[in-house]
Amino acid sequence: MIIVMASSRPEDVEHVVQKVEELGYKAHVIVGVERTVVAAVGDERGKERLTALESLAHVERVFPILKPFKLAGREVRHEDSIVECGSAKIGGGHFCVMAGPCSVESEEQVNSSAQIVKAAGATMLRGGAFKPRTSPYSFQGMELEGLKLLQAAGRATGLPVVTEATTPEQVGVVAEYADMIQIGARNMQNYGLLRAAGKSDKPVLLKRGMMSTINEWLMSAEYIMAEGNPNVVLCERGIRTFETETRNTLDIQAVPVIRKLSHLPIIIDPSHAAGRWELVLPMACAAVAAGADGIMVEMHPNPEVAMSDGQQSLKPKRFSMLMEAIRPLLQVMNKTL
Amino acid sequence: MIIVMASSRPEDVEHVVQKVEELGYKAHVIVGVERTVVAAVGDERGKERLTALESLAHVERVFPILKPFKLAGREVRHEDSIVECGSAKIGGGHFCVMAGPCSVESEEQVNSSAQIVKAAGATMLRGGAFKPRTSPYSFQGMELEGLKLLQAAGRATGLPVVTEATTPEQVGVVAEYADMIQIGARNMQNYGLLRAAGKSDKPVLLKRGMMSTINEWLMSAEYIMAEGNPNVVLCERGIRTFETETRNTLDIQAVPVIRKLSHLPIIIDPSHAAGRWELVLPMACAAVAAGADGIMVEMHPNPEVAMSDGQQSLKPKRFSMLMEAIRPLLQVMNKTL
Amino acid sequence: MIIVMASSRPEDVEHVVQKVEELGYKAHVIVGVERTVVAAVGDERGKERLTALESLAHVERVFPILKPFKLAGREVRHEDSIVECGSAKIGGGHFCVMAGPCSVESEEQVNSSAQIVKAAGATMLRGGAFKPRTSPYSFQGMELEGLKLLQAAGRATGLPVVTEATTPEQVGVVAEYADMIQIGARNMQNYGLLRAAGKSDKPVLLKRGMMSTINEWLMSAEYIMAEGNPNVVLCERGIRTFETETRNTLDIQAVPVIRKLSHLPIIIDPSHAAGRWELVLPMACAAVAAGADGIMVEMHPNPEVAMSDGQQSLKPKRFSMLMEAIRPLLQVMNKTL
Amino acid sequence: MIIVMASSRPEDVEHVVQKVEELGYKAHVIVGVERTVVAAVGDERGKERLTALESLAHVERVFPILKPFKLAGREVRHEDSIVECGSAKIGGGHFCVMAGPCSVESEEQVNSSAQIVKAAGATMLRGGAFKPRTSPYSFQGMELEGLKLLQAAGRATGLPVVTEATTPEQVGVVAEYADMIQIGARNMQNYGLLRAAGKSDKPVLLKRGMMSTINEWLMSAEYIMAEGNPNVVLCERGIRTFETETRNTLDIQAVPVIRKLSHLPIIIDPSHAAGRWELVLPMACAAVAAGADGIMVEMHPNPEVAMSDGQQSLKPKRFSMLMEAIRPLLQVMNKTL
Repeated sequence: MIIVMASSRPEDVEHVVQKVEELGYKAHVIVGVERTVVAAVGDERGKERLTALESLAHVERVFPILKPFKLAGREVRHEDSIVECGSAKIGGGHFCVMAGPCSVESEEQVNSSAQIVKAAGATMLRGGAFKPRTSPYSFQGMELEGLKLLQAAGRATGLPVVTEATTPEQVGVVAEYADMIQIGARNMQNYGLLRAAGKSDKPVLLKRGMMSTINEWLMSAEYIMAEGNPNVVLCERGIRTFETETRNTLDIQAVPVIRKLSHLPIIIDPSHAAGRWELVLPMACAAVAAGADGIMVEMHPNPEVAMSDGQQSLKPKRFSMLMEAIRPLLQVMNKTL
Repeated sequence: MIIVMASSRPEDVEHVVQKVEELGYKAHVIVGVERTVVAAVGDERGKERLTALESLAHVERVFPILKPFKLAGREVRHEDSIVECGSAKIGGGHFCVMAGPCSVESEEQVNSSAQIVKAAGATMLRGGAFKPRTSPYSFQGMELEGLKLLQAAGRATGLPVVTEATTPEQVGVVAEYADMIQIGARNMQNYGLLRAAGKSDKPVLLKRGMMSTINEWLMSAEYIMAEGNPNVVLCERGIRTFETETRNTLDIQAVPVIRKLSHLPIIIDPSHAAGRWELVLPMACAAVAAGADGIMVEMHPNPEVAMSDGQQSLKPKRFSMLMEAIRPLLQVMNKTL
Repeated sequence: MIIVMASSRPEDVEHVVQKVEELGYKAHVIVGVERTVVAAVGDERGKERLTALESLAHVERVFPILKPFKLAGREVRHEDSIVECGSAKIGGGHFCVMAGPCSVESEEQVNSSAQIVKAAGATMLRGGAFKPRTSPYSFQGMELEGLKLLQAAGRATGLPVVTEATTPEQVGVVAEYADMIQIGARNMQNYGLLRAAGKSDKPVLLKRGMMSTINEWLMSAEYIMAEGNPNVVLCERGIRTFETETRNTLDIQAVPVIRKLSHLPIIIDPSHAAGRWELVLPMACAAVAAGADGIMVEMHPNPEVAMSDGQQSLKPKRFSMLMEAIRPLLQVMNKTL
Repeated sequence: MIIVMASSRPEDVEHVVQKVEELGYKAHVIVGVERTVVAAVGDERGKERLTALESLAHVERVFPILKPFKLAGREVRHEDSIVECGSAKIGGGHFCVMAGPCSVESEEQVNSSAQIVKAAGATMLRGGAFKPRTSPYSFQGMELEGLKLLQAAGRATGLPVVTEATTPEQVGVVAEYADMIQIGARNMQNYGLLRAAGKSDKPVLLKRGMMSTINEWLMSAEYIMAEGNPNVVLCERGIRTFETETRNTLDIQAVPVIRKLSHLPIIIDPSHAAGRWELVLPMACAAVAAGADGIMVEMHPNPEVAMSDGQQSLKPKRFSMLMEAIRPLLQVMNKTL
């Protein structure tokens, strides 16, 4: 932790040194031309206590040196993690394509979706049963019935399924029917939910909050891992910016940034980032070339009548085109589907 | 709902008109110089179905005319709502000052805090027992014990207390010990939690998510109100932007915007917006002058040793100065404390 | 400058120490538990050279300790600067109200505007002659003729006038006809223009870019001051965020932040921040209470036919209401109009 | 233009209809369940006049239907534009790699840079002579001497050169020595500069402002084209967001969005987006796969001593690796270097 002093008066510096040492750190004072700096050496896992020194009038700023995550960090595990989910592998050269409708709407719709994405080459089936919707008046999902339909469609096609849990209590039932538990963007800092997922033995897909920094995202992964579940896959799905031509701004740079900071696999969801189906194919290609470990794509047999997210869902034919577009890129990148 | 056509070919327009009518709307076609527009007239509460028309190649864009909220809207209730919370009133000319420490840390700390803020003129006591922290390794709050200490400190000073619930299950116990249930910024779209708070008979303080639009914020209030709880107070606490001199950017314009759109009271939390104690006093003054119905301020008897948020907490003396600064402004604004 | 090492190997640390000393700084090495840090002590005004050390694989991050501005900083001048502009004073207790139309449109319009704002109590007249417009097909201003009409309207009412220059060449003619030169938000980092304004003897109103940090804004003031012109007034006019209910987000916290960092006066332009006339009055009040040294407000005799910015311009009667609303607040804040 | 009424009273609607017709549009009134809408049919190139209707209390919102650009739009020119710049072609299947140092620093440095990038396969040489720097105390470039050195290095290697002009007056001299005129991000809305570039016969590289929308960017291209210069290449270089792990957030979605809206070529500058050299290679790959028409990359023979942008510049060996990485991807995408 580096503490930049607002005042260089010896008694003010001494006061800070004393506080630093009371908190169990070793203090180094560096007297500069215009500013004095106190470096606090020690484990920063009590850092909010040090940050409180900013409440002193003679302290200008306190900033940390270490990244706050541990289990999710590249430093404790150098090699890439490979997360297994039924027949699918994600990370370390294994590319994963999770595809399917935004919501499970009926038996026919989910079965048809599963067959279409399987035929085109997807490796996992997605579909929402518990839907977190901005409006209380919107379709909230088929819930338990949806879970059962999704599981059946997955089994019929041999595709592992991923679906969202939105409360700590739903984690149990989702883990029972699905192969992977999704934590949605709006719940990235729902710590009760993260802890519940951390206690499950199913792998977890952790979407980045649309307002969350990469550091916070890794800290949310840390919550899951600290409960004993090491199988976390990160999913970038767009962040909020001032641009209005797209629903969100896909932060493609997150791929190499995460690769450097963490050993966890990272996939891209171009459907939610764009909010418009025309952008999904080129962004899936960009994800492959950027080095992502997979993509998650919304496909609906008939988007114009979808209960949710119709505008960003691909038609079956367009999904096949996407798969054809990424195959040669995967080959160049030495990734196997 | 307005549907802007990408194509003006009669068959494409006819296709859209048909879809619009199938969904139960009346369609008006307006042929412009360069674009054809289809207006869909009817209740937009099924609007995601219409939005799905964007999946058609011959549709450029679909946008709604109506605001999506109903109960929270100014249109269903013209006069300002006044929310009562024990002895405190919020809204309609009643100004509320909620003050106290970020976290309840000990009996002595919370009692001392309650006495200090009461003496300076605060009308409610705040203090966290269940703390949503970015890091799983940070202090997570005193939980049930903290709730009991907070309640006792409130009763001893006659101040109603407000504290946060972070999961649906905590709502019951929080409602038992506290006078107002706080929903934190990170949980603004935790719909399970919103529904649980909506079923409680205690008033709810709904903080704005740090990257949530005003529309989404009102939709979260709508979730609470749709469950039968009309007593919602909105709290602006800063949004995320590119500026790094402050922790968040206080969206002070939210006050008059909410005033126009909604009948619900709105208060300002300058402590979390700024993340720095020196900005709290001028921003509390700005909140009063902008027309807010209250403020929520972090005060700690000894910020340099606070377990959390020390850098943004006011010392007792500075909190008194804040109260002295806002009193004459409240008088000008015709607000009573 | 603090250099955080990615590697703690002695030869890597030694390499950085050597580089730091080659660039003329003194190096202090602090060996921490998990990271080694090198502090480079010396004047940071060559800092991009040090920043280049980030190109080394064994360096994780380089960050500066000192603020990059000097003349604009509070440290070189402790007392508040008061900028004089004809009969108007700005700063140090003097509050300034600059009001008038977005664009000068005709002799009648600008004269009528000047009389209206003067009668209501404004202290300066604003009006654009050279208009920077997003579209090349929009009205670009009356240019020289507009300058002359503005000057005449100012003289007739005794109001000093402020108007924008958009290119280095326009600075001369603007300085000839106006009492204060405005640098618009889009030109905040137009360094040629800043230098030209710095060579003028007229005071400069420097608007914050809608995408600029407070640090960058003060660096732009530094450009003007470094050319010899100390009379800079800063103007916050809203920054860009994801919120769409308002045109921009008014960063009201900029007032106390600037007050701490700089001795320069700061005013608020609520018209451009909001982009909607209904928000202008409450935001003008908030500006006063936050401690601003003035406001800049768009008023048009007949906004519905304005050539530009009609939607955010106040009608004459609403402008009078605004003046009535801020007077008692100015009294509380000990500011004189 | 769609005008949403706040009031449905016949006299208010009639007032708006009258105003719309006075401005030369045809008005269509659509009476909805809760809102009345007036559609104004006609050319929207006078739209700020219509927008002014928002100043009426009985109007809620006015929003445009048409995109404001014309010459830059896909509608006036269906096929992709190919911009020629000496031996280099950009667009329509031709991929361009502009590489070289941030600043021209010396004859040796620029010559060595030119040879290195040429040998690795770059098709154009970049290098700054007039540098827009945040600080007035930073190195401001070698100016005219830099231009001459850059031209010489380009001629010696057969690489066309691109360099920035920062004021209208510099356009002439830049056009004399360079093959392409760059407009930097900070000057994207410097309209005097855009007009000067529009009068030149050299092609223009227009960087996106770091907080400019795609619409504004195309409007800036429109300024150049409206002066008679059709040879504009767009360059996405990252936008500003809350994320701090990278200098800016690369808006990779801009590639397919621009492709849909405009016929102009679009290239990506991963160096400025990332601000960190390690991200440049994967982002260059992503740019190719997203369908970009080129990249612009900073390469320095010895980044640790660079006068500017050292931390984001590639070393010669890393630049060669980048070229090797994109070649097979270009083949998949059917692009020729």
